[in-house]
Amino acid sequence: MHEADIRFLKLALALARQGTGTCWPNPSVGCVIVKDGRIVGRGRTAPGGRPHAERAALDQAGTATRGATAYVSLEPCCHHGQTPPCADALIEAGIARVVVPIVDPHPNVSGGGFEALRTAGLIVETGLLAQEAEDVLSGFLTRVRLGRPWVTLKLATSFDGRIATASGHSQWITGPEARRWVHAMRARHDAVMVGAGTVRADDPSLTVRDLGVTHQPVRIAVSRRLDLPLMSNLARTARDVPVWLCHGPDADASLVEAWNGVGAELLTCQLTGRQLNLTSVLMELGQKGLTRVFCEGGGALAASLLAEGLVDELVGFTAGLAIGAEGRPGVGALGLDRLDNGRRFRLVESRAVGSDVMHRWVAQHESE
Amino acid sequence: MHEADIRFLKLALALARQGTGTCWPNPSVGCVIVKDGRIVGRGRTAPGGRPHAERAALDQAGTATRGATAYVSLEPCCHHGQTPPCADALIEAGIARVVVPIVDPHPNVSGGGFEALRTAGLIVETGLLAQEAEDVLSGFLTRVRLGRPWVTLKLATSFDGRIATASGHSQWITGPEARRWVHAMRARHDAVMVGAGTVRADDPSLTVRDLGVTHQPVRIAVSRRLDLPLMSNLARTARDVPVWLCHGPDADASLVEAWNGVGAELLTCQLTGRQLNLTSVLMELGQKGLTRVFCEGGGALAASLLAEGLVDELVGFTAGLAIGAEGRPGVGALGLDRLDNGRRFRLVESRAVGSDVMHRWVAQHESE
Repeated sequence: MHEADIRFLKLALALARQGTGTCWPNPSVGCVIVKDGRIVGRGRTAPGGRPHAERAALDQAGTATRGATAYVSLEPCCHHGQTPPCADALIEAGIARVVVPIVDPHPNVSGGGFEALRTAGLIVETGLLAQEAEDVLSGFLTRVRLGRPWVTLKLATSFDGRIATASGHSQWITGPEARRWVHAMRARHDAVMVGAGTVRADDPSLTVRDLGVTHQPVRIAVSRRLDLPLMSNLARTARDVPVWLCHGPDADASLVEAWNGVGAELLTCQLTGRQLNLTSVLMELGQKGLTRVFCEGGGALAASLLAEGLVDELVGFTAGLAIGAEGRPGVGALGLDRLDNGRRFRLVESRAVGSDVMHRWVAQHESE
Repeated sequence: MHEADIRFLKLALALARQGTGTCWPNPSVGCVIVKDGRIVGRGRTAPGGRPHAERAALDQAGTATRGATAYVSLEPCCHHGQTPPCADALIEAGIARVVVPIVDPHPNVSGGGFEALRTAGLIVETGLLAQEAEDVLSGFLTRVRLGRPWVTLKLATSFDGRIATASGHSQWITGPEARRWVHAMRARHDAVMVGAGTVRADDPSLTVRDLGVTHQPVRIAVSRRLDLPLMSNLARTARDVPVWLCHGPDADASLVEAWNGVGAELLTCQLTGRQLNLTSVLMELGQKGLTRVFCEGGGALAASLLAEGLVDELVGFTAGLAIGAEGRPGVGALGLDRLDNGRRFRLVESRAVGSDVMHRWVAQHESE
């Protein structure tokens, strides 16, 4: 039975992963209902967060839910919010057994879902594939635990860590396959974030293109003074795909008004000295409901996030081209004197993507 | 039969690969002798270049060579040098068929081996696994074709392409597994080469350690003025493992004498302007018989080799640590203005090595 449990739970986790980036502030959850060894229903949290995965899977299973097992990637909810609690729905459907990797740490749930199920006589099994579930839910869990979103920092660099020549030429260091991967990664995050320098230098759109994706991530620019070009792609399209600007309390009022006028949303964040406090920026984004933010540079923002220990995941694309020491660095100044003082990331994946190498790392916890 | 041919020829190539770094100026060749589908002899070029692979395999096969097939990774030699020609040895042993991927472009052979075999009535098949054979023999072939050795450039950097902090702290960016791989790569090259700055900053030994290897690569330092510390590890051990110093014609005579005195070999190379001409350096090393050189930096030497198009293979080890823009760059200034002007390398391998990512690239030919 254990082997089958793992198989079905992995499917629930795969369903959950598919919805990452589209459900915020809710977690993307997957659910598989199995009766007599056959899958009778599957569901995942709908874009926007509702209906929940359990509801979708139960609806698909119909009357086959009696005595069935439900595999869910996260503890079912038990509070009456905008939808009736999923724990109640599982009980009413006559589910006999529920297999769930981890408890939902959200104060509204936090074991209450399991308790409701057990009180109603269902068998509840937890702990299986817990690490995998933590990975899939990293954004939601980080927001619940720390109040800020999970931050993925992407760097597409030359072999020697440069993102442009001295004259600013940067198109293209990596190949078309790597760029397509970046679009797919954007789609798996709630928001894409860049610094002001990148907006000025590259005038990026930051949308997901050519992947048949309808849901677009929020586009965030971090700029203390809001000195961003109002003729930019972001300004021009702010009514089509959300643009959020994180600025300091001292930004010029006329710029605030102008950006409001083109449809951007403005978030006032705190300063530390003369710099935007990035913890404040991320807490603000967490407050707004974001669970996963994909930062694409530039070098100054990347360095600030790294220096403040706010990067949870690093994604590198490395090209087979050297630009040399005059080229623009992918990570700005960090003030690191000795290697022992730097934060180490743990390699989780590396592979060829087209003509480039992709490598993915996660921050090590202090205890590691 | 074709499938079996591939299998036996791959074994011959694997034998050849094992000897890489130990046979210069000779190529490392592998030979497998097969009678009635069974391997009756195998051999590879002995360290130092003699005896040749065919001789070793024939001796092992003894009388079983009559009517057998010989799989050899390179055209057998046909000239009377320090050993009798291998083509004659195959003929005398009664070999019926010879399978060889590529012709030996050396002017002393250059098809003559095949001709001798065919004249004697042996069946000769060529072309199978030719690309693989070119890879295994890249050092020997580069020296025959261009007069210089194959150059592998290794860079062990932080995630953002740095080889040390601003204060020069560099031990260790990559982990013990990556460092062990570097030692194994040194052992597969005829020589290890660094710039003068690296000798002064790191005082490296450049030997192969902890791998049970007895044959050590030549150690080369490139220094126009020979301003290298005479109290260094290289100077101290120059009588145990060869040290070659490539310097300019204007190096101080007393320094030349002092380095001669500790047992180093001095190679006078040409200048271009105020710099050592690296083509001249490599031609000098080719003249001395080297076929494969492993360059381990520093940034200035790496940049000069890259800028002059003298790097054939790039090996990167990337660690999960950011050092930041003040850190020392792995590749110095290249004067690259636009990306299209940079030389592209083609990815041939990428994988996790301990806690780091290893990626290996080869220079693309102009026609690619």
